[in-house]
Amino acid sequence: MQGIESILYGIGIAGVAAQAAAGVLDAGRKPFDLFGIVVVALAASLGGGSLRDVLLDRTVFWIADQSYLISAMMAGLATFVLVRRVRLPARLFLLPDAIGLALFTVSGTQAALAMGAPWLVASLMGVVTGVFGGIVRDVLCNEVPLVFNGELYATASWLGALLLLGLMAYGASPGWAALAGGTTTLLLRLCAIRFRWRLPVFRARA
Amino acid sequence: MQGIESILYGIGIAGVAAQAAAGVLDAGRKPFDLFGIVVVALAASLGGGSLRDVLLDRTVFWIADQSYLISAMMAGLATFVLVRRVRLPARLFLLPDAIGLALFTVSGTQAALAMGAPWLVASLMGVVTGVFGGIVRDVLCNEVPLVFNGELYATASWLGALLLLGLMAYGASPGWAALAGGTTTLLLRLCAIRFRWRLPVFRARA
Amino acid sequence: MQGIESILYGIGIAGVAAQAAAGVLDAGRKPFDLFGIVVVALAASLGGGSLRDVLLDRTVFWIADQSYLISAMMAGLATFVLVRRVRLPARLFLLPDAIGLALFTVSGTQAALAMGAPWLVASLMGVVTGVFGGIVRDVLCNEVPLVFNGELYATASWLGALLLLGLMAYGASPGWAALAGGTTTLLLRLCAIRFRWRLPVFRARA
Repeated sequence: MQGIESILYGIGIAGVAAQAAAGVLDAGRKPFDLFGIVVVALAASLGGGSLRDVLLDRTVFWIADQSYLISAMMAGLATFVLVRRVRLPARLFLLPDAIGLALFTVSGTQAALAMGAPWLVASLMGVVTGVFGGIVRDVLCNEVPLVFNGELYATASWLGALLLLGLMAYGASPGWAALAGGTTTLLLRLCAIRFRWRLPVFRARA
Repeated sequence: MQGIESILYGIGIAGVAAQAAAGVLDAGRKPFDLFGIVVVALAASLGGGSLRDVLLDRTVFWIADQSYLISAMMAGLATFVLVRRVRLPARLFLLPDAIGLALFTVSGTQAALAMGAPWLVASLMGVVTGVFGGIVRDVLCNEVPLVFNGELYATASWLGALLLLGLMAYGASPGWAALAGGTTTLLLRLCAIRFRWRLPVFRARA
Repeated sequence: MQGIESILYGIGIAGVAAQAAAGVLDAGRKPFDLFGIVVVALAASLGGGSLRDVLLDRTVFWIADQSYLISAMMAGLATFVLVRRVRLPARLFLLPDAIGLALFTVSGTQAALAMGAPWLVASLMGVVTGVFGGIVRDVLCNEVPLVFNGELYATASWLGALLLLGLMAYGASPGWAALAGGTTTLLLRLCAIRFRWRLPVFRARA
């Protein structure tokens, strides 16, 4: 279907832009120079998909098609200009980050399926694509990754990916499955931010 | 030989399980949620072999064969359940970690040899396979990598890999060479833990 | 042209040696054992090119040709011996690091061009090749990457890569373009160190 492919393409471009904006908003709280901010934006927005493509031995998506690179740079620079003029709330980057998480989860899961990966690998590829960029962003900003400390983040990604795979196993079209999975991930993440849903944190009795 | 291949396959599955258990025991000392613990367990157990396969341009082993992924998840979850019920000594994770180091050193060296890599590269691939998962685990847990601070760790891996390669150069069968190399790595590492063998730490006069 | 290829080959070997020396001089300020120092030297000198080759899906350069690995090890060990005998100024590692940055920027950009990458990707590959090894070195040494805090570092690399690409677009031979681009990167970096040229550091009003 050509329709579904152009939708997924648009989803990918939008996800890259959202994660680049989130990267700039996060890096902007550190004393970085303009280059450092661009690097964090690129790493945050392209890191997850790059790892997915390297693991699946596909051509890395932003090398095959420069549009993603340009989208990330434009979104990063636009956010940079905006953020210097307007006083923004500290946690604003959480919103584009959540959107990027949902979009990348969907595109990562479907890219792995298209390579013939089994369902468990495909769902993990969705999580990797959604989460890894944010981990790299936090490591470069010298923060503990947001993902690990009880935030309902990667879990939201995984549940969305599993729903997508389950719907397709029951015969849903890729488009509807992507819509349902992505919406689930986004809503779970937004509820987690809004209502402070957290996973129980566990510490061994050592 | 079909015999040696099934032995190496079993070695790989056991090594993945051992490193996943070590990852959970290490991550369990941090306030991580269940997902964070699963991620650390997967990164610790699959990271070294993934880097090896990406560098050698092989299909990543746990994408080609889901058994590794399932083995890592089962071992991680079993350790997680165990660790919540029983009070475990703080350094317990060192034992499965040492076993995983020995198993991965052997499988990494032989995988590189099978790709036709020269001996120096093959021995380093053994070290990468054995050590990189643990480095990722420690970086994700925000600790200085265990490897660098005078622990006889990667050195034990390298000596085992070099012995394996030396024995094969003198005509030993892959099975015996693997046994001798892996046992050497394991014994060196266990002695290093038990008798506090350490490499001299060096600091430049700056 | 066989002449230009052997020049680029020599540039690559020299760049690896320079970055390995810089890695040892940097790691030598931490209490690392000999193995840790070798790892940091190898990661610093081979990391950038490895990431470039994995992203471009080329055979990793130091696996295809062991000379790079041997060059990195020899340069690292020679620096290690030297540094134990002579009292060296703390910031000495900045000089080989700058040379390595210039050499890697050139070789990374031209490797990407040879794969048919478009110019924006090619210039970023030059930056990745030049900068990523140093980022890995700093992360392994548990320091904030030198690159991000206003140092004119990656920017020097990018300007050199863009000059190289611009000259080639206007018909310059690869050799002259490489010479001009590499010299630009080196001079910018040396001036930045000598005259404390820095990029403006930016912090969002959050």
